Amino acid sequence: MPCMSDLRKDKSFLTSLIRERKSVLTIGLDVDPTKLPAVINGDILAFNKAIIDATRSTCIAYKPNFAFYESLGGEGWRILEETINYIGDSHFIIADAKRGDIGNTSAMYARAVFDQLHCDAITVNPYMGEDCVTPFYQEGKWVIVLALTSNHGSSDFQQITLPSGQKLYQKVMKTTSTWGHAGNTMFVIGATHPADIAECRNAFPEHFFLIPGVGAQGGDLEAICKAGLNEDGGLLINASRSILYASKDSDYAERAFDEAQAINKIILPHLSQRMNLS
Amino acid sequence: MPCMSDLRKDKSFLTSLIRERKSVLTIGLDVDPTKLPAVINGDILAFNKAIIDATRSTCIAYKPNFAFYESLGGEGWRILEETINYIGDSHFIIADAKRGDIGNTSAMYARAVFDQLHCDAITVNPYMGEDCVTPFYQEGKWVIVLALTSNHGSSDFQQITLPSGQKLYQKVMKTTSTWGHAGNTMFVIGATHPADIAECRNAFPEHFFLIPGVGAQGGDLEAICKAGLNEDGGLLINASRSILYASKDSDYAERAFDEAQAINKIILPHLSQRMNLS
Repeated sequence: MPCMSDLRKDKSFLTSLIRERKSVLTIGLDVDPTKLPAVINGDILAFNKAIIDATRSTCIAYKPNFAFYESLGGEGWRILEETINYIGDSHFIIADAKRGDIGNTSAMYARAVFDQLHCDAITVNPYMGEDCVTPFYQEGKWVIVLALTSNHGSSDFQQITLPSGQKLYQKVMKTTSTWGHAGNTMFVIGATHPADIAECRNAFPEHFFLIPGVGAQGGDLEAICKAGLNEDGGLLINASRSILYASKDSDYAERAFDEAQAINKIILPHLSQRMNLS
Repeated sequence: MPCMSDLRKDKSFLTSLIRERKSVLTIGLDVDPTKLPAVINGDILAFNKAIIDATRSTCIAYKPNFAFYESLGGEGWRILEETINYIGDSHFIIADAKRGDIGNTSAMYARAVFDQLHCDAITVNPYMGEDCVTPFYQEGKWVIVLALTSNHGSSDFQQITLPSGQKLYQKVMKTTSTWGHAGNTMFVIGATHPADIAECRNAFPEHFFLIPGVGAQGGDLEAICKAGLNEDGGLLINASRSILYASKDSDYAERAFDEAQAINKIILPHLSQRMNLS
C-alpha cells in the first residue's frame, strides 16, 4: 500500500494542480453499496480503486464522504483508510465529515482525519463557534467551513437575515475568515446558489470555495464558473453520484472517466480565460 | 458479548429509569488514551467495561463521544462497537457524534449509529436545516438537536439576536421542534447557561434536555436542576471527565462510582421534589 508522505498541499500546490490538469474537478467518493455495478461483487474498495484509476488524470481532489463508510461499521473504516492511502500524494484529499464539537473533542476529530487518515482538509460545521473550529487548524492542513449548503434546508437557518442586513451564512464566512486565512480556510457554497457564489467571490476574492451540488443535485456549471473562478482557480467543483454511477455495467470506470471529462469540458473555457492557461 | 434487542427506549422508558435509579445522570465515555490509569495498560475497552460495571447503578444513560474512538482509527471503531454492546439494554445510549449532512448522507449516518451500533439517540447539528435533521427520525430512535452548547464559542452564532427578537438557538429549537415531537426530540443546552435552561423549559415544558458541561466544564448543578427538571425528569445531565478520570490509580473505578454518586446526591432532593419520588 502506498504510504502518505508529509507533502504540504498548500495553495500553490492546488493552483499548480489546476494548471497542470486543467481541471477544478473534485470527485466525491460517496460509495453506496446498493448502487455498485454487479460486476464489482459488492467490493467497495475495488470499486474505489477502479474509479480512482480511471479518473486520476481528470481531477485535482477526491472527497470521501465519511457517512457512507461509517454505515458499514469497522469494515467501512478500513476501506476508508485504504482508499485514502491508494489516492496518495497526487491529489488533494478532503475528509467530508462535517465535524465540529467543543475544543478537546474537535482536537480528537482532527487527530482522526489528519493523523490517522492523512487527509489534507476537513469540512467543519461552524454552529458551535470558534473553539469548535480552531482545533482543526494544523500545520499544512485546511479547514473547509460550511457556509451556504446545496440542500433545500439551507433556507431554514443559513439564509436568515440578521439585524445587520447580513445573512447568517455571510456572518459565518466573515467571522470564521478571521480565525484562519485564504491559505488554510475554504468555504462550502452550494452549486444551487450561483448568484450567491458571485457575491461570496466579491467578498472573499482569494479564498477557495468547495462547490457541491453539481450533477445529481442540479447546479448550473457555467454559471458557477462565471461566478466563482479566480486567477488561482479558486474553486473545487464536486460531483459524486453522476460520476460514480454513470453506468451500472462493466463499463462503469470508462463511463466515470467520460462523465468527469464532460464536466471538465464545460469548465475549461472559463478556466482557461480566468487563469490565462495556454 | 450481549446482543442488543429491539427494545424501544421511549419517553416512558426514560422516566421509568429515572424513577427506578433516582438519577438523571448520563456518563460521557470520552475516553482519552493519554489519561488512562497506568494499571489499565492502555486497554480502552477494559477501561470502559470497568467504568460501566462500576457506574451502571448510578446512571440512566451512557454517551460515547465518537471523536475519541475515531482518533484511534479502525481499532477505535471496534472498541466503540464492543462498548455499546457491553452497555446493553439497561441504559439509554447516546451517540455523541454531532452529525448532519444533506439527506442521503444523513441517512447513511443514521444507518451507522442506529443499525450498525444500535444506539438509541444521536446528537445532530442543525445548521444545514430540515433535510439534514429529519433522516435521523427513525422508529423508536431519538434526535438530540444542538441548541445552545456549553462552550464559549456558543456566543459566536447561537446567541445572535435575530430581527424577531429571538436568539438563533431559540429559533433552532422552535423550528426543529416542529419536525419531531417531545417523544423523539431532545435539545442540547449547556450547563454553563442555567438562566437559559429555565427559559427553554418554559418554552418547551415536555421536551428532554441533554445538559453537558457539568464537572470539568463547571456548570452549576443545583441551578440546572431548579431550572430544568420537570415531572418526567426532563433532563439528562452529563458528566464525563470528572467521573472517568476521578483517579489515575488502581481505585479509578471505585472513585468513578463515588464521583457519580456525589453528583446524584446533589440532584436527588430536587428530583424527588419535582417527580414526587418516595
